[in-house]
Amino acid sequence: MTVWLVGAGPGDPGLITVKGLERVRACDVIVYDRLVAPELVDEAPHDALRIERDRLEQDEVNELLVALGRRGDDVVRLKGGDPFLFGRGGEEALALADAGVPFEVIPGVSSLASVPGFAGIPVTHRGVASAVTAFAAHEVEGLDAEALAHTPGTLVAFMGLAGLERLAVRLIEHGRPAGTPAAVVSAGTTPDERVVTAPLGAIARAAEGLPTPALVVIGEVVALRASLRAVRRSAA
Amino acid sequence: MTVWLVGAGPGDPGLITVKGLERVRACDVIVYDRLVAPELVDEAPHDALRIERDRLEQDEVNELLVALGRRGDDVVRLKGGDPFLFGRGGEEALALADAGVPFEVIPGVSSLASVPGFAGIPVTHRGVASAVTAFAAHEVEGLDAEALAHTPGTLVAFMGLAGLERLAVRLIEHGRPAGTPAAVVSAGTTPDERVVTAPLGAIARAAEGLPTPALVVIGEVVALRASLRAVRRSAA
Repeated sequence: MTVWLVGAGPGDPGLITVKGLERVRACDVIVYDRLVAPELVDEAPHDALRIERDRLEQDEVNELLVALGRRGDDVVRLKGGDPFLFGRGGEEALALADAGVPFEVIPGVSSLASVPGFAGIPVTHRGVASAVTAFAAHEVEGLDAEALAHTPGTLVAFMGLAGLERLAVRLIEHGRPAGTPAAVVSAGTTPDERVVTAPLGAIARAAEGLPTPALVVIGEVVALRASLRAVRRSAA
Repeated sequence: MTVWLVGAGPGDPGLITVKGLERVRACDVIVYDRLVAPELVDEAPHDALRIERDRLEQDEVNELLVALGRRGDDVVRLKGGDPFLFGRGGEEALALADAGVPFEVIPGVSSLASVPGFAGIPVTHRGVASAVTAFAAHEVEGLDAEALAHTPGTLVAFMGLAGLERLAVRLIEHGRPAGTPAAVVSAGTTPDERVVTAPLGAIARAAEGLPTPALVVIGEVVALRASLRAVRRSAA
């Protein structure tokens, strides 16, 4: 009896880890995020209990995992990306720890590098960017835009599409050049992937209407995409 | 015929992706990093050509991949972590693109969140850190220590063990408190994992003698480990 905090990866169901898939296939209960690929939820045993997380508040999820763990079930908590990179896995882990319920973590492929990488953008690249900063951008006014503007290397904004206009303005106000290459990747690594690129000063308008989930990438590495995309297409 | 740039994950061979393992099992040639789990190299077909990358310079690796791709083989380039997060996958991809050789990217689990996460440290956590900056620290004097010291959230240094004393000094000089919690995780996610924690001002001495590969984590999230570790151990 254990609760497994499992990262499902960035979208493509083939990007779950081998260990993660093994756990899904052997679970009694699966508690999954709405954005997790349905193909992965289907991998759970047909008699496994399936619970969609998004109808519950985070506190309720924590309580549910504790209650299920105490019942002695093998529980998989399947989360998009990696459990500990904007996945709120830490909160669930702490709730389980406080309750004395054993748990294990099976990391996953975060969107951070995989979604840009699949779209032809390496988030680090020798001579271009030797650092990358990922941040949650759903509350733009709460961000330390001055520090972010001066952070060396690539910026990757999670949940940044809704506030993108304001995010770009604030970064430019604090010194990031308006001409910095930027990209928005919607539904990355899936057949529905859409990629828009534009200078930082124009990216919000260019990305208007793109569906979520979407990842925002800001930095010179975005310019590498022009060279990388052509050949990948020819391989399809 | 394609060259597949495949992320092998952070150490534990079970943390390769399902897609990545499929490609390894079907390849004609595998070019692998020394730090990749040997169990994964063993998954290649028994008659596949095996080439260890670490005897070659990066330029030679690029040329080798182009030559193999042109021969029409299915080539797996198996890299530690994720190909595009300090993996130099961008350089290999550009060389292939320049030569007109088709390639595809299969992202992997980077050490960035998985190694700390497995050791009980969530790199982001609500109310503690809503951003994480990863940087390559093998050349400490070249780093923008002032910007890094003021970056909001968690810092994760790749290749940072050798220069850790100097890195800590520079971050503290530029304003990170010497009491900031810090950790070094050696051989993360594997049975040889070793974790040392100490305040930033004392972490270099505390981590002396730890073997590489090692990841350095700096930030308040490290303090969460005390609560998370106990229960994980009881599950083993």
